[in-house]
Amino acid sequence: MEMIEKIVLLGAGNVAAHLGSALQLAGYNIVQVYSKRLATAEVLAQKLGCAFTCRMEALTPEADLYVIAVTDDAIAEVSACFPFRDKLLVHTSGTTPLNVLQAGSDQTGVLYPLQTFSRDVPVDFSKIPLCLEALRSADRDKLEALARSLSNTVTWIPSDQRRILHVAAVFGCNFVNHMYAMAAGILEENGLAFDLLRPLIEETARKAMKGDPRDMQTGPARRHNKNIMEEHRKMLSANPEYRKMYTFISESIQKAYHQ
Amino acid sequence: MEMIEKIVLLGAGNVAAHLGSALQLAGYNIVQVYSKRLATAEVLAQKLGCAFTCRMEALTPEADLYVIAVTDDAIAEVSACFPFRDKLLVHTSGTTPLNVLQAGSDQTGVLYPLQTFSRDVPVDFSKIPLCLEALRSADRDKLEALARSLSNTVTWIPSDQRRILHVAAVFGCNFVNHMYAMAAGILEENGLAFDLLRPLIEETARKAMKGDPRDMQTGPARRHNKNIMEEHRKMLSANPEYRKMYTFISESIQKAYHQ
Repeated sequence: MEMIEKIVLLGAGNVAAHLGSALQLAGYNIVQVYSKRLATAEVLAQKLGCAFTCRMEALTPEADLYVIAVTDDAIAEVSACFPFRDKLLVHTSGTTPLNVLQAGSDQTGVLYPLQTFSRDVPVDFSKIPLCLEALRSADRDKLEALARSLSNTVTWIPSDQRRILHVAAVFGCNFVNHMYAMAAGILEENGLAFDLLRPLIEETARKAMKGDPRDMQTGPARRHNKNIMEEHRKMLSANPEYRKMYTFISESIQKAYHQ
Repeated sequence: MEMIEKIVLLGAGNVAAHLGSALQLAGYNIVQVYSKRLATAEVLAQKLGCAFTCRMEALTPEADLYVIAVTDDAIAEVSACFPFRDKLLVHTSGTTPLNVLQAGSDQTGVLYPLQTFSRDVPVDFSKIPLCLEALRSADRDKLEALARSLSNTVTWIPSDQRRILHVAAVFGCNFVNHMYAMAAGILEENGLAFDLLRPLIEETARKAMKGDPRDMQTGPARRHNKNIMEEHRKMLSANPEYRKMYTFISESIQKAYHQ
């Protein structure tokens, strides 16, 4: 089997930066970074020690794999401008289907890291589930070998299942973080430290590591404690955004767990 | 200073069980468990190896501290039936103010463990912030000594601040868990394993341990990516509960992070 050695990153944001570092650590050769904005490409290229460009026509044909890591809305455009029909082209998106890449190459795939990436927060790629998809069976072994050299959890998932996974991740990550953020806001407005809440946040996540979160639900809404909920709503009346959120989610919990 | 040695638990639910075990481990003598239902009192009393009763008149006067650990709605009632005016009586609630206990004793306080307790999930009390309040300054030292023997984080917080902390905890724990639960439901309905999401959940909590969650927000709503959000809403249309939640929280995130 022909192995992947040289890789070009199409994109220079958080995902490209984290994935690029992980690939380099695993021994792959990142040969070039492309970004629409030259300065952005340069920053990541300097970090990785490779060439960079802002013109698709200047992409090197010398790589074995081209990884699109841009926002979902830009994937189709980058793919349409991709100049090589005989090169393996993958994207890293949870939501965008595989066939969007057909405009770019006949050899297409997906490498979706199911994780949240923030600038300057290092992540351990070995623990990130990598969700793969490939158009041609000939590319499956190459992609899987690459994925397994990065992560302990590699799984093949078709486009329609992958976007389900992504929407579940929005609930389990993005919406969860917004709850953390609202809690931080409520505490800050009342002169209390977010630190006090951290052990509780940690324990809540720890429980979800071990069991089904639907068996772990606690709190006033789960107990259908209308007095406490009414009192909480009153306390939050100074900030309608908090109060509306409290009411909405409490009603959803009560509906999910009938008395 | 007179120290607390013997303790009676008024209540036999999750909080009473976890707190009772922790107190016993720290060397305190749990002498009696009271619960309105005799069978419930008996279960916990057998675990702790102590006496039990379902009648307030049968409470032993031999203890130094009486801990009410019942649902918020029942605290006033238990306090009103408490037969000793000269005994230290505390409750463990985040929301109920200290003065609810005035009906029961002249020596009152609060010992609020800021944590979520589930049956059969052991917790490390040393990491749980304990929020204290006491009516009489004479009781402060006793309560603080007891709290410090259980936890590394002990803090004095008056009733009106404590209930703010509790409402923030509803966001940071109960609402967060509901998001986990919805993600689990979405995956299950589509034949996907919740396991795939666990590393993401862990990482999202880990980030909140280190920084301000408002600096960590990611996802389609944070990026104001209307196409993805519209697609997600369509995917969730089979279950209006998921779709409504998606729309509501996405709008809240967009509002919080202006473009």
